[in-house]
This record gives sequence, C-alpha cells and structure tokens, in this order.
Amino acid sequence: MSEEQAEHKHWIVYPLGSKPKWGLAILLGIQQYLTMFGATVLIPFIVGGAMGLPPDQLALMISTIFFTSGLCTLIQQSPLGNKLPVIQGGTFSFLGPTFAILGLCTAELATEAGVPLWQLKIQMVSGAIMVASVVEIVLGYTGIMGQVRKIISPIVIGPTIAMIGLALFNIGAPWMAGNWIISLITLIALILYSQVFSHKSKVFMLFPVLLAIATGWLCALLGTVTGLIPDGNAANLGGKLDLIGSAAWLSFKPMMPFKWGFPNFGSSVLWAGVFGMLAGYLASMIESIGDYYACARISEAPVPTGKMISRGLGAEGLGCLIAGILQTGNGTTTYSENIGSIGLTKVASRRVVRCGAAVMLFIPIIGKFGAVLATLPQPVVGAMFVGLFGMIASVGLSNLQIVNLNNSRNLFIIGISFFAGLSVPYHFNPMLSASAVPIDWSAGGPFFAVLGNISQAILTTGMAVTALLGIVLDNFLPGASRAERGLEVWENEASDEAWEEAEAKWAAMKEGEMRPV
Amino acid sequence: MSEEQAEHKHWIVYPLGSKPKWGLAILLGIQQYLTMFGATVLIPFIVGGAMGLPPDQLALMISTIFFTSGLCTLIQQSPLGNKLPVIQGGTFSFLGPTFAILGLCTAELATEAGVPLWQLKIQMVSGAIMVASVVEIVLGYTGIMGQVRKIISPIVIGPTIAMIGLALFNIGAPWMAGNWIISLITLIALILYSQVFSHKSKVFMLFPVLLAIATGWLCALLGTVTGLIPDGNAANLGGKLDLIGSAAWLSFKPMMPFKWGFPNFGSSVLWAGVFGMLAGYLASMIESIGDYYACARISEAPVPTGKMISRGLGAEGLGCLIAGILQTGNGTTTYSENIGSIGLTKVASRRVVRCGAAVMLFIPIIGKFGAVLATLPQPVVGAMFVGLFGMIASVGLSNLQIVNLNNSRNLFIIGISFFAGLSVPYHFNPMLSASAVPIDWSAGGPFFAVLGNISQAILTTGMAVTALLGIVLDNFLPGASRAERGLEVWENEASDEAWEEAEAKWAAMKEGEMRPV
Repeated sequence: MSEEQAEHKHWIVYPLGSKPKWGLAILLGIQQYLTMFGATVLIPFIVGGAMGLPPDQLALMISTIFFTSGLCTLIQQSPLGNKLPVIQGGTFSFLGPTFAILGLCTAELATEAGVPLWQLKIQMVSGAIMVASVVEIVLGYTGIMGQVRKIISPIVIGPTIAMIGLALFNIGAPWMAGNWIISLITLIALILYSQVFSHKSKVFMLFPVLLAIATGWLCALLGTVTGLIPDGNAANLGGKLDLIGSAAWLSFKPMMPFKWGFPNFGSSVLWAGVFGMLAGYLASMIESIGDYYACARISEAPVPTGKMISRGLGAEGLGCLIAGILQTGNGTTTYSENIGSIGLTKVASRRVVRCGAAVMLFIPIIGKFGAVLATLPQPVVGAMFVGLFGMIASVGLSNLQIVNLNNSRNLFIIGISFFAGLSVPYHFNPMLSASAVPIDWSAGGPFFAVLGNISQAILTTGMAVTALLGIVLDNFLPGASRAERGLEVWENEASDEAWEEAEAKWAAMKEGEMRPV
Repeated sequence: MSEEQAEHKHWIVYPLGSKPKWGLAILLGIQQYLTMFGATVLIPFIVGGAMGLPPDQLALMISTIFFTSGLCTLIQQSPLGNKLPVIQGGTFSFLGPTFAILGLCTAELATEAGVPLWQLKIQMVSGAIMVASVVEIVLGYTGIMGQVRKIISPIVIGPTIAMIGLALFNIGAPWMAGNWIISLITLIALILYSQVFSHKSKVFMLFPVLLAIATGWLCALLGTVTGLIPDGNAANLGGKLDLIGSAAWLSFKPMMPFKWGFPNFGSSVLWAGVFGMLAGYLASMIESIGDYYACARISEAPVPTGKMISRGLGAEGLGCLIAGILQTGNGTTTYSENIGSIGLTKVASRRVVRCGAAVMLFIPIIGKFGAVLATLPQPVVGAMFVGLFGMIASVGLSNLQIVNLNNSRNLFIIGISFFAGLSVPYHFNPMLSASAVPIDWSAGGPFFAVLGNISQAILTTGMAVTALLGIVLDNFLPGASRAERGLEVWENEASDEAWEEAEAKWAAMKEGEMRPV
C-alpha cells in the first residue's frame, strides 16, 4: 500500500477556512449534528421529565433546544464568537443546580403565580440561567477569562482534554448494552468506514459517521419490522415511528421568547437558583476552554489566542441568555461530541458548521424532519460515543508531544491530575457510584450551602478536577523549564500572526478544494 | 534555579543493576513494600471474610500471603524469573472465580470431608489455583506467551499501561474520603517531599513515599490519642493498636505447606473451579505483560524481550502453585503499585527489591512487626494510591512518544481502546456500578457457564479490554507504517544486545554509586 510508505503529517482534508461546495457542506453539516442528537434530546427529557411537563410541552421544549443550538452556533461563528468549528448546545453541568431549583418550587408558589407547577419551574430555572449568564458574558467579553491561558501549559491541557472524552465512560458501553447486536454493527461499521473503506472511497472518507449511523438505524428498522427486536428493546423503533406520524408539519412556537411566561425576577427562589447556577457556569467555562484547545488541535489550526477564548466564552454567555429567553430549561455550551467527529470525518470547515447550524434552525420548524431524527435509537448513539469520545481523549494526549516526558516532575503532574479526574467524581457523583457521598453543606446556612453547591459542581466534573489540579501543580512545582513544559512551542503558535498566516493559507484554497493529507 | 536550565533526560538514580549500600537498600526495599500493604492485607480480608474464617485463622492467612509475596518475588528475581524490579503478590483477578467456588461448597460436602466449612473452602480454592497454575507455567516457560510481543506495539501498550493505573479510580478518592484531613495531609506531604524537598535533600529524594506514609500515620496516631479522630473513623488507630499487643512475637506457621489440609483433587467442585480460575489467569497474564513493559520503561531499562516475558509469566505460574500449596486463598501476580513507586522514589535497583522481599519473609515470623504495619490506615493508603496510580498512567502514556500522533488512524485506535477500557467494565462490573449487568450464561450448560465466566473476567478488567481491542485494531487496520506505529524503535530496543549493553553499564557502577540525573 502506498500510504504505508509515507509519513503522515496531516489528517484534516477540509481545514477551518476551506470552502466545500454548498451541497456537500450541508450534508457534512448534518453529519456533524447527527452525533449530537442523542445528548440534545436527552437533556430536555431529563429536565422536562423532572419538571413534570405534559408530552406536547416536552416536544416543544425539545424543538426549542434544537432551534437554540442552531442560533447559538451561528453566534459563535460571528465576529461576536471565536469562529472555531464548535457546536453549541445544552450542558450537563447545569443539571445539579437545576434540580436544586426544582426542589424549591412548591405548589403554593405556583398557585400564587397563577400557573401550573411545571410552568413555574420552567420560569424559575430559565430566569436563574438568564441572570447568571451576565457573569459569563462579563468574564468573557472583558477578557478576564482569556488571561487564564497564561497559566495553562500542554501538561495541563493534555489530560484535561482527554478527560472531556474519558469522563463520559458511563454512557458509552452502557448505552450500547441496550442492544449489543445493533450497537456492535454500528461500531464495526464506523471502524470499517472511517479506517478501511475511507482509503478507497471519498464518500466513506467524508461521511463515515453519517453512513455508520444510517447502517445502525436501518438494521434497527429492519429488526423492528421483522419483529426480531422485541417491543420495549432500546433498539426497537416501534413507539418512535408513531412520533413521526403525530408530529406537526410546520410550527413557529420554538422561536417564541418567554413562551411559558415571563419569570418573576423578584422571587427569592429564582435568586437562590442564580448562585447555584454560577457553579454550573464555572464548570462549563473550564470545559469550554478545554474544548477550544481540543477543537483547534483536532482541526490542525494554531493554538487559540487569549482573545479567542474571551470571545468564545462571551458568546456562550450570550447563548445562555438566549436559552433563558427561549426557555430551553438549560443553558448552552460547546459540545465535545463534534470535536471527536471532526477527527473521524477529517472535516473542520467553518462553512460546514454554519450549514449544520442553519439546518438546525429549520428542523424545529419542519416538525416531521425533527421527529425522524428523534427516532435515533440509544444503542446506535452509544456506539458513536465510544468512537468519538475516544478520539477526543487521544487528541488531548497528542498535546503531550511537545512536553518532555522524560522528566519525572511532568509525569507526576500529568498522572495525578489525570487519575484524580476519574477518582474524585466517582466519590462525589451519585450518578456514577451508588456509594458516592455528595457534598451537602446546607446545614451551615445559605453561604455554606452555595459554597457546597459550587464545590459539588466542580468535584463531579472530571475535567474541572483535572484542570484545576494540573494548573496548581504545574505552576507551583519546580523541576521543569518552560521549554520542557511545552510552553515555548505554544506561545509561538498561539499568536495573532500564526492565525493570520493560517487564515491566509486557507483563503487561498479554491471553492471545493481539498487539502492533500 | 539550576535545574530549570538543563533538559532532563533521566529520572532514575539507582537503575536495575546498581548496588546501593546494604543498609540503604533494606530501607528502600521496605519503602517499596509499604505501598503494597493496603492491597496485600485487603485480599485476605475479602477472601477470608467471605469464607467465614475465625479471627486467628484470618491473621494466619494474612501472614501467609506476606510470606508468599516475599518468596515469589525472590523467584522472579532468580534465573527462573525475568529479573525486573517487580514485586509479586495477591491478585484481584482471581476474586470472581474464587466467589464462584465458595458458592459451590456446601455444608454437606464439609461434613463428608470431616472439616469445618471454611476449611473446605480454603482447600477447594487453593486446590483449583494449584491445578490451573500448570497452564500458566506451561504457557510461560514454553515461550508461547513471549511470542505475543510481536503483535504488541507502543500504540497498544501505552493505553494498556495507563489503564492499569486509571482503572483503579474507584479506590483512590473513595479511600481518601474515609478521613479527608489525614489523607490530604498525606497527599500534600507526598507531593512536597517528592517534588519540592527532593531537590534540596537526598533523604527526601530517596524516601518520599516512606516519609509521606510516616507523616500521615503519625497524624492519625496523634488524632487518635488526642481524641480528635473519633472511634470508628477510618483513620482511628484505636482497635488496630490492640492488634499489636495481641500479636505473637514468633510464629513459623505461615511457612507450613497445606496448613489447612490437603485438598481432595477428585472433587468435582475443585475441577469446576479450575475452569473459572483459567479466566482469572488470562486476565492476570495480560496485566503482567503490561506491568513488565511499564516497569522496564519507568526503570529506564531496555524494552523487555520475548524471553523475559516468557520467564516472567512462568515464574508467576510457579508463584501461584506455591500460593496454592501454602494456601493463601489467592494466587500471585505482579503488583502495579510498586511500579508507580519506582517513578517517585527514582530507585529501580534489583538489590532493593530483593532486600524488600527478604524482609517480607521475616515479617510474618516476627508477628509484632507485621501487626504494626497492618495498622496503616485506609486514608493514608488512598492518598498514596492517587499519587502512584497516576504515575503508572503517565508512564504508560510516555510510550506514545515514539508513535506518530499526527496520524488519525493511530489516534483512533489509542482513543477507542482507552475509552472502552473504562466504559466496558463500568457496564459489567457490579463493584463499579449499581446498574452493571454481569454476564451469567450458566443457564446454557457448563460449557457456556465457563465461557461466560471467562468473558466476565476479561470484560471487567479495564486493561484487558484495552489491550485486546488495541491489539486487534492495531494489527488489522491499514494506514500506518511500522515506523509510525513505533515498532521499529522498539524492535531495536527489545534485543538481547540492548540488555547486555545496559547490564554492562550497570555492572560498571560502584557499590553505593548513584547515576546523575
């Protein structure tokens, strides 16, 4: 084989500034979004379920979160954002504080407000998210968070990015287990399409994820129709197909601001929620910074500059404000899933992300289309996760190439922060372990309750633990020069000049041109 | 600081063949063993507890496992073994099949055999381990397992070693949580001693682990005496101190073969157990191969040769046979803990390991000494684990230095095998997750029951999942040359010549000489 001779230097065929032809870009954009469907549908299911939403209102909430995802991704692509090919969507780090707010909403408060309890709950959660979003907007656009870059070396960011992928180990195999046959077919298809067929065919090179999902989906459909997959199995499409029938053809409701009523900003429940949400925002910001580095590295772009980090977080704050106004019941942050997907599809073009986002704006309006996508069975999504989250992990580890790994101080920091990122959340997160002991300092008064909430949010987020421990140790422990920590290489790469140079190279690419790898 | 100028090329001050002075070597050897105390005491507690052993018999079982550990480590250091500075001791991978055997031992069988039920259980478990050990002895000494080396590249071994450390995430922070104050003191002491004070003082450079354990231990003692640590807390030494008082000064029982009676090798229970044990042996062998690579790498020795792997596994088989004869209720395998400890203490000398092993032979005989060590509180051990297991993980990752990480095929394989190693056990291991679904194919008859046992043993061992998936993908997927996979560098290093050269260099070191780093 000829590729066995050559040393591989690149993997991205469509870099950030490249311009795949429009038809192709739209298809590639849909592929980027497909991997996010599982998580995007899951969040409103969890939040809306906990709120006790009636089924038709839950469907509306799902449509709203898709619409918001498209809108916020476009904002991140505008001069207000960082223009990295990142996709914006719901975040798990808000779930803890959200549940805390739900616990504070009583039937009496709802009667007082003259709305059903579930509606009050949406108002309070979305209101708290709106208020707290101001903090992220300010920390972002003032450039304060961009300064964080100076204390982050590859020693910190390598394990942190790896942890973004690895920390999701509890939803890889367990989701596949819903139906091992369907999920293994999907996973083997993903491996063959992306690693074997891709060498022979351009279609498989560019669409391994889309085609693997389609393969798994078709097998699930076949199994459902023939009766081989019993009712109630995770891969059975039976009930889900009815969803397509009952979905509306056209609906503009998802775009409506305050569709479930304007929140009462004087409510003490809402303000108690704001402080809890701040912890969620902190975890989400650390994760997003990690995502920016991961996305730039997997896209083979220069290292993100301080300005880009600032604008990125500012745009995410704006996105959360919008999510609060449109009432998704959740905020927005950068999705990790599509970062892994960039590595597999070898496509990092901004045009592709924008096309995908535009499609997301339309999906909630054309209800039937969304319903079709919502039938994606969990075992198929689980198989995708195993491939994609792993890719994020190894891209993170590839940052260690510029670190001296024959220095025991570096090895110690990488190791301890990595291990703690897995071990600490396992002790504090009841979703991971039945014997977990969550932090509850509410007995110490409101101040300690908030402090406890913030600690809990950080200690249950693997990559936050890894990042914070890594930053502290890497900046305080002696025994390695800046060059050995990989900082010199990065400082040269994370410059406006490096970006200008890269942008110029991309701009010189013709419409539809692919970069040789 | 002067160390900030120089590029670090080495970290080991006492390489394999170096000869630290005898007094120092004994102290360093005890330090190596200290980190293993927690796990070594834990296994007889779990197994003996499940068997229903009376307290005095449990104490004898603990002494026996320490004695066996010393003996088997010396065998591994002899021409029968691989002479890597690895320590031999009990293994968790035998627990599954052990519990299966315990379930088969009924009161009727015990009456028939004329012994108490717990005694029958020891006989059956140890008998099954003895019989099955023949398989490891044969696979090892015939050189069959040494051939496995040819299909293992750094792409496979990097994540596999990392997983040895990371997969233990469920006993790092959760053990520390028994008393956060004591465990954080211990952990901070370990960090300061090994990473800061070590630059100023030779004592801290060589004994960071010993001194950190002593610090944590003293604080626990102080807290117990002053009453600041309440009774029943994991760091309270109260009940444990009585143990020292009641321990015998001298006892030769641990050395006695078949101390709990000769097993009935005609029993069908024993033979059913043999097949289950084979699964444990398989997982243990894969882990040991990973340990050999990790130990050689962290010791800055050449890559292990096929012959060394063969002899190492053969010696482990012999060790299991001995463990069965001495009736530890468990087998022996290579401990991962001391591999991390080599990285922190910078000591990889064989003389040190041999001295430590010799001390282990005497500890069970001088009962009081063993009792003192057995008071090591769990939070102190947990803190050590966080530091040591992390070190194993990063040493594993440092193998990726010779792999091309700008090749998306390599990134994909590293990532997917890494992620699966965490995600798959989480689905199958009830000790990790309350919603885990263990494999039970016993309904399909004895053949499927054994097959199910073997699958369960592999799928709950993170590094076995990572290794097997990595080997399959790395050997079948196209897209990378042998050089890009890091195989060429390894093949040059894993030769008899490379070892002869290294041995000659070590042999030239004077008694007590340290290598400059």
